[in-house]
Amino acid sequence: MLFRIALTLGLIALSAGGCYSYADERPTMSSVMEAAGESDWRELDPEFTLYMKIPGGTVIMELAPDFAPNVIENIRLLTRARFFDGAAIIRSQENYVAQWGDPDADGSDARSRGDAASSIRAEFYRDAAGLAFAAIDSRDAYADQVGFVKGFPVGKDNGDGRAWLTHCYGMLGVGRDSAPDSGTGAELYVVTGHSPRHLDRNVVLAGRVVQGMELLTTLPRGTGSLGFYASEAEYVPIESIRFASDVAAADRIRLSILRTDTDTFQDLVEARRYRAEDWFVDPTDKIGLCNVPVPVRSAE
Amino acid sequence: MLFRIALTLGLIALSAGGCYSYADERPTMSSVMEAAGESDWRELDPEFTLYMKIPGGTVIMELAPDFAPNVIENIRLLTRARFFDGAAIIRSQENYVAQWGDPDADGSDARSRGDAASSIRAEFYRDAAGLAFAAIDSRDAYADQVGFVKGFPVGKDNGDGRAWLTHCYGMLGVGRDSAPDSGTGAELYVVTGHSPRHLDRNVVLAGRVVQGMELLTTLPRGTGSLGFYASEAEYVPIESIRFASDVAAADRIRLSILRTDTDTFQDLVEARRYRAEDWFVDPTDKIGLCNVPVPVRSAE
Repeated sequence: MLFRIALTLGLIALSAGGCYSYADERPTMSSVMEAAGESDWRELDPEFTLYMKIPGGTVIMELAPDFAPNVIENIRLLTRARFFDGAAIIRSQENYVAQWGDPDADGSDARSRGDAASSIRAEFYRDAAGLAFAAIDSRDAYADQVGFVKGFPVGKDNGDGRAWLTHCYGMLGVGRDSAPDSGTGAELYVVTGHSPRHLDRNVVLAGRVVQGMELLTTLPRGTGSLGFYASEAEYVPIESIRFASDVAAADRIRLSILRTDTDTFQDLVEARRYRAEDWFVDPTDKIGLCNVPVPVRSAE
Repeated sequence: MLFRIALTLGLIALSAGGCYSYADERPTMSSVMEAAGESDWRELDPEFTLYMKIPGGTVIMELAPDFAPNVIENIRLLTRARFFDGAAIIRSQENYVAQWGDPDADGSDARSRGDAASSIRAEFYRDAAGLAFAAIDSRDAYADQVGFVKGFPVGKDNGDGRAWLTHCYGMLGVGRDSAPDSGTGAELYVVTGHSPRHLDRNVVLAGRVVQGMELLTTLPRGTGSLGFYASEAEYVPIESIRFASDVAAADRIRLSILRTDTDTFQDLVEARRYRAEDWFVDPTDKIGLCNVPVPVRSAE
């Protein structure tokens, strides 16, 4: 019964303090976001923003050149060669990933890749030195330390100084075969289930979906093994993929993202760690890396 | 460059050992499952198995009477009163939950709840004593210790001895209003995104989806606030919810689940922790609670 007593004490503490309860005095995620100023936001860089048009709408992804500069430039070459226009989403595996590329990649009808490289040295991790790493106080199952770099969730090894993007929900990955350098960006995936962190440092992550996740998560699951679409009839056609900077300014969808190198972001993390909203009866005061939201809004 | 050298050494170690590489000698999830015997499986108990028929198929859930016995018996009363037949899925929020109940719960057309109670003392946690707790060696962001009890993911507080079901992907929860005892089972939800562990101990979990998750995760997201369906036209009708034991034996969908109190399950966890498949170049040797799979198969 110890815990019942502890809980009762907690409730007494919550109701102390005059007119307002303790809970009311602590910020909520809403109050933090209301207090945020213009300087807490940054507009996405069109040079590193991707639009993927599929039936139902446009998936918008922000790329992470601090972590995967070479494969991102290869994706730029593929995109400019119109490699993805007319390609397809070929896989939707429950609680895992949606994946796209050239369905005929291995056949005689393989799509032209223009000047894109056919192998890229794998960018599984980088040196943490030089990164503006905003640490989060969280006990992580997979990394010594975790935090954010320019909006992206990052793991760090305190021993060897490596840093890497982590497989949180919505992250954009670079599919590969067995050879580590076989991930060229011609096959990409997005995490659509509970974050598969065992993939960290085994496959290159290149960015994150910032709008349109629901277009990917609601795709019919593939009936083939590993959620691959078993027949051409199941493929979900891709109308086009474009870098925002390759689209006329008037046709861009301008988005801003909350900066993660600010006090406001740390306040948001704390408000998420301790949920002061009345509904919570026993706020955990703990937080996991992939449970931290990074808000996105229209920049128009 | 330290980490590059460490990785090279790792690869040398992997290829030592004669004809087979070190990696080949370690079990994979496939090899563990192939080696499993009949006694590693248990058939679901029809008394604690729920069928929910919706357009597209049947979602099957296993209930957890060790953790939420009272609300489960209330769900039984609601189910036998046919409360859910003709009710609807009323919410599908991206990266969060799908939720169902009586769309007219607060109106004059509210559905009859038969003899079901209108409040239930919240079963947010229980004493860990008496549970067959199979611990997992994992550094968890939210709980001192984690593991499995009869197939369900569980967190434990070493200080006060509390144990609770955790909000992993696919878990079945009992919606509630502000009052902790307002969760009666008349509104239920399933986690459809990255596991929202901050809800642990703040809302009752009553079970887990064991088949048909894709029927819930692919539902169109609600256009209203918090992913609620904004109009009746968006509701997804529920044809029926039944306990398997209330269905003729011939009409049951018999499933078995891997027992989690066995050496085989621990082997599976270890094979998931260290991915020995050739594709992995840098297996993490770490694991998160919600990343542990609990296999389910047909019992027929």
